[in-house]
Formats: sequence, C-alpha cells, structure tokens
Amino acid sequence: MNDSPVLALAKDLISRQSVTPEDAGCQVVMIDRLKALGFDIEVMVFDDTTNFWARRGTEAPLFAFAGHTDVVPSGPLDQWHTPPFEPTIIDDHLHGRGAADMKGSLACMIVAVERFIALNPDHKGSIGFLITSDEEGPFINGTVKVIETLMARGENIDMCIVGEPSSTHFTGDIIKNGRRGSITGDIKIKGIQGHVAYPHLASNPIHQALPALSELVTTKWDDGNEYFPPTSFQIPNLHAGTGASNVIPGEFNVQFNMRFSTELNNDEIKRRVLSTLDSYGLDYDIDWTLNGDPFLTDHGALLEAVVEAVEEINHIKPQLLTTGGTSDGRFIARMDCQVIELGPVNATIHKVNECVNIADLEKLTDMYEKTIQKLLVK
Amino acid sequence: MNDSPVLALAKDLISRQSVTPEDAGCQVVMIDRLKALGFDIEVMVFDDTTNFWARRGTEAPLFAFAGHTDVVPSGPLDQWHTPPFEPTIIDDHLHGRGAADMKGSLACMIVAVERFIALNPDHKGSIGFLITSDEEGPFINGTVKVIETLMARGENIDMCIVGEPSSTHFTGDIIKNGRRGSITGDIKIKGIQGHVAYPHLASNPIHQALPALSELVTTKWDDGNEYFPPTSFQIPNLHAGTGASNVIPGEFNVQFNMRFSTELNNDEIKRRVLSTLDSYGLDYDIDWTLNGDPFLTDHGALLEAVVEAVEEINHIKPQLLTTGGTSDGRFIARMDCQVIELGPVNATIHKVNECVNIADLEKLTDMYEKTIQKLLVK
Repeated sequence: MNDSPVLALAKDLISRQSVTPEDAGCQVVMIDRLKALGFDIEVMVFDDTTNFWARRGTEAPLFAFAGHTDVVPSGPLDQWHTPPFEPTIIDDHLHGRGAADMKGSLACMIVAVERFIALNPDHKGSIGFLITSDEEGPFINGTVKVIETLMARGENIDMCIVGEPSSTHFTGDIIKNGRRGSITGDIKIKGIQGHVAYPHLASNPIHQALPALSELVTTKWDDGNEYFPPTSFQIPNLHAGTGASNVIPGEFNVQFNMRFSTELNNDEIKRRVLSTLDSYGLDYDIDWTLNGDPFLTDHGALLEAVVEAVEEINHIKPQLLTTGGTSDGRFIARMDCQVIELGPVNATIHKVNECVNIADLEKLTDMYEKTIQKLLVK
Repeated sequence: MNDSPVLALAKDLISRQSVTPEDAGCQVVMIDRLKALGFDIEVMVFDDTTNFWARRGTEAPLFAFAGHTDVVPSGPLDQWHTPPFEPTIIDDHLHGRGAADMKGSLACMIVAVERFIALNPDHKGSIGFLITSDEEGPFINGTVKVIETLMARGENIDMCIVGEPSSTHFTGDIIKNGRRGSITGDIKIKGIQGHVAYPHLASNPIHQALPALSELVTTKWDDGNEYFPPTSFQIPNLHAGTGASNVIPGEFNVQFNMRFSTELNNDEIKRRVLSTLDSYGLDYDIDWTLNGDPFLTDHGALLEAVVEAVEEINHIKPQLLTTGGTSDGRFIARMDCQVIELGPVNATIHKVNECVNIADLEKLTDMYEKTIQKLLVK
C-alpha cells in the first residue's frame, strides 16, 4: 500500500536532519508545494535562521498556518529504538525526531490546503504560511522577526493556527487558546564579605534577603481567570558563597521565573516585585527578561471554526486550555490576531522515540481543512 | 650591632620555607636548643606532619608552650615589598611570612626558657613544648594527635600558653582566655524536579526551606556570658538549580556555621537545629562537622600569672577576650588544662608583607619569662 499524501510528506520532512536552527531543506519542500498552489513566496533569512512567508490571495480576512521546521536534538542515540532521522512505522505510529513536534503538523497543513484549494480555488480572503527554523532555539531570528516585518508593512494576520502539539490523549482533545506570559528576574543582592567569626564586620546578603524571598514565594499574585490558572512564582536557581565554610559571602544571586495570566502584565509585575524588595531595604541589582506576554483568544470566528471542526471529527468538544510552556503564538498574538494552537499528542515530544499516531495525522488534516472551509468559503 | 638572641632565632625560623604542612627544619633548630637545656625530646610524626613534644622535669605542675612551625602560603609575590622567606628589617619591624604567626612567638618561647633555666636550673614542676607543623592546614595530624598520645598515657598538661598572635595594637593588649566553639552543618533539602510551567507536578525545595532558614537565621541561640558573645549562626554557602530558568530544582544545598559560647554544646545545637527543620516538615539530610568545642580559662594560677606578667611589662592590664577564629587551644583544653593565648599583634597575619615589631618580640620574651617565674620558681 502506498503512503497517504500526509504520511509521505511527514516522512520526507523527518528524514531531513533539521536540528535547530538548521532547516535542512524542509522549507524548500514546502515552498515547492505551495508555489504549485499559487502562493507568493517570500524567503526571509535573519542571521542563521531561514524563514518563509507564503500568501495566496490579497483580500481579508488573512488566515495563516504557523509552524517550525527545526527540531530539538535527538538525545542519546542508543536509547532510540529506530534511527531518529529515518522515519519508521511501528504499530501504526510514525517514529522519528519531529514526528509530533511538528513535522507531522506541517504535512497536515500542506495537504489540508492542497485539498481545500482543489475544491475551492476561488476562496475568499487569503491563506498564509509563516514557517521558521528557530522555534526550538533562542527564538530571536524566527517568527518574531517575520511578524515584525509583516507588521511594519501593515500586513496583519487576522487568524492563525499554530501547529504545536496541543493534544494529550488523541488529536484535538485539547486546543490551546492562549498561553501564560513568562518573565524572568535575576537579582543580585549585595552584602559585605567577611569572616564568619566576625559577623559584625560583615553583612550576609543571604540573611538579608530571606524575608523578602519568603514574601515573594508566598505572595498571591492574582486569582487567574476563566482561562488562566493563578500566576505562579518559582525560584529555579540561586547561589551564594565562596565554598569556604568560614567566609560570609558578599553577594547572593537569585533567579525567579513567573508564569503569568492576563490579569497581570509585565509592568505591574515589575512594580510589585521591586516594591517587595525595596520594603526590606535590600541593596540589589535586578535584570529582567520578558520571555513572552500572555495572550488569549476567547472568542471570534477562528475559535468557533476550530471548535466546530474538531467536534465534527471527534464527536466531542475540545477542551480549551492555556497551560504549558511558551510558544511562537505569543509573537503572532502581537498583531491583535486570533491565535489557536492545534496539533497532535505531545506525549513523546523532546524525548527519545518521538512518534505520532498515523491515523491522528489524517484526522488533524481533516480538522485543518474543515476549519479553512468554515472560514474561507464564499 | 649584632641581632639579639630572639631576633636571630626568629630570622632563622622565617628563612625556612615551612608552608603548611612542611616544617622545613624549624623543629630541629628548636629541638637542638631545648636538648642543650636538658629537655627530653619526643618527635611524633603522623602521616605528612612532623610534631614534637619536649619536657624538662617530671614533677607537677606541667606548664607548656604550644605553637606551630608551619605558615600559610605567601600569596602573590609581586605584592610583597621583601621576599617572604628572607627575613628583612624595615623601620624596626621584622618582615617575612610567619614573623607574627608564629615564628616570632616560637623564638620568644625558646629564649624565655633559656633565660629562665639559666637563673632557675632547679625550677619546680615541669616545662613542656608542644610544637606542630599542621596548624594552618587541616589540623588532623598535628596538636590533636599529640594531645591524644599524651592523654592516652596520662601525661596531662596543667597550664599552657599558646603563642598565637592575640594582640591588636601592642603585644599583650589582648590575651585570649578561651575560644568559641565552631560547628558546620551541610543540609541537603530534597524536593521534586520539574518544569516551572507545571509547578503542581514538582516540589521546589527552595520554597519549602525558606521559612525554616528564616527561623534559623533569626533565632536567638543564647545570650553569651561574661566572656563569650552570643552564639552566632551564618549561612556561608548555598546553591540550587540546573542553570535553566524553566526547571524547578530537585535539591537545595545549604551550609551553615555556628560559633558558639560555653552556654551551648554540640548536642544541644544539633537538637535545636533538627527540631526547627523537622517542624517545617522538610525532607532533608544533614552532615555535621564539629570544628571545635568552646573552651574558657576564667580563673587559675596561669591566668593570674599571665595577667600580672603582662601588666608588669605594659603597666596596663590586658583585656581578656574569646573572640576570633579557632586555634589549637581547643584541642589542648580537652586535657582539662588552663589555656591562655598570648602572642604579638595580628594585624598582618595571613596577609602579604607580614611583619612584627622587633621591640614587641623582646617584650613578649619578657612576658613569657616572667610568667614561668611566677609559676615554677620554688
């Protein structure tokens, strides 16, 4: 039996070793298929990263698929049951690095659009593809730069499906209609180094900081809302000390990370953290890294269309969640765009023996196709 | 002008590069002088460390001098104004590594005893010398082993002067009549590692431990007493984290050190620390290192003799303190022995350009000699 179009394309993409930020020719494969459908292609290279923007049509609304061709490294080869870059089928599952995150989704998008255009060559609005090879890396030269380029010329995406593996047990059981924001603070608390036998001549920055840290980790930042859990505060890293047991350290470094809901924002978080630190009279420096603002798509044509499409295929409504890490959706949402993440089961992503159920890929293709039909058929 | 006997001997000792645990022939120089005075010599080598025990007389009381021939490394040579192992006189000061800590004191002890025996060949009691080359290192094979050997055969020192540089502005302004105890605890607090985006699946050991640490650093352990400041608690070292800002660590390592008065002891400290940790329900391991028990010589013939001798030379009473780091006095005190530390000004010890005022060395010799006279003249 021949491979289905989706399976054949997914295999082709997996066989290309596009470890981030490499694209390894994946985008050319996609571009060739899209060109044949009448898409205008714009390759955008930023530094070490290859991206492309493809568009078919000039009218609004502009619906786009977004995704990435890069994958995380394979990890220990001896723990893989199959070579990670040789797509292999075992028990109805396609195995290989990127099968679920997210070369499978890319294949579904392409085939869904091919089918849709074959039936609706004169669809209304426009269809776009925003594809990067920098999602698994530092996400500096990928989606964010493409979005900035598009926004600078006033070409705003109205609705976007990101192909991130959103599902837990079967494709479409969960769709992500937003993501929490993420902000990291690196605090350097300054004391006065000295000998532990003479504490009155020193000032231990650990001792000084403990009350402030205790308050920060127990603060209730917000209550979350219908779509977001309450904002969380975690200390992933801290260190102080010279290694010697008789030296009071002169400096204490603490890093915290907050995953925050749409009830808060960057400025409000900074104001509250600084206010707490200042209230304890600490001498400190702080560096902030805003990894992403929160976004939420809680209504609109895209959400309706995706929910209906998934329900028609699965016969149950998908659950809407905003949990999990960050995604490129945060950059696309800056366009004031409706953003939904819908992709396959994420159980094996970033692990050895990454795989995806083949039947799920066919279903995902149907879901993507039905969604475009609902949005772009005249 | 010829060097005085004390200055000549101090120079000889400084010129020997006895960086800990090396002795570099210093002890042989001392032994030769003591043999000539009729001392019985017992060299005690433990592992990499050379020590000796010398005794003149068989009667009680047994008075001893204790000291070390090893020195700390020179540190950066380019910051020394003179070569550290070439004794050099500049502006009435003898410069060189060990001048103050404590080759100067060793020279004073030897010359004081030579003068005393010349005048009192038939003194009462006994005079001892307990000399090690392991005071600046790990103090495992030095004084502690000699003391254990002596105690095992019932040869207990009754009164001991340790030549540590106790003075602040001039020799004898301060004598140490005790030292605080020192105990170190290494706590490993266990949590559950996880992704910061899913804190409900992890358990952050930093967050768990903060309340307990806050309590420990703010606890009043005791009020101290007439001779000891209150017991102190310091966290010299702590660390946790993988380095990644999105990983909740699985383990948190905290080291604390307590300098404790004679109002507390080892067992009581352990009981109270464990009780605090347990009261917060922490999952932890703890390793204890007892660096030394506190000791105090608050009365007795030795204290009286030293105070009188210093007062007669300086015309003011010395101040009695127990501050500062640990010393080998803690091991000698285990014999239930009166222990006093009296030595030169400590301003330059362990630093580059270590030096000692030459006139102060002559005064220290007089103080040592007067003390023995008060104790051992029939």
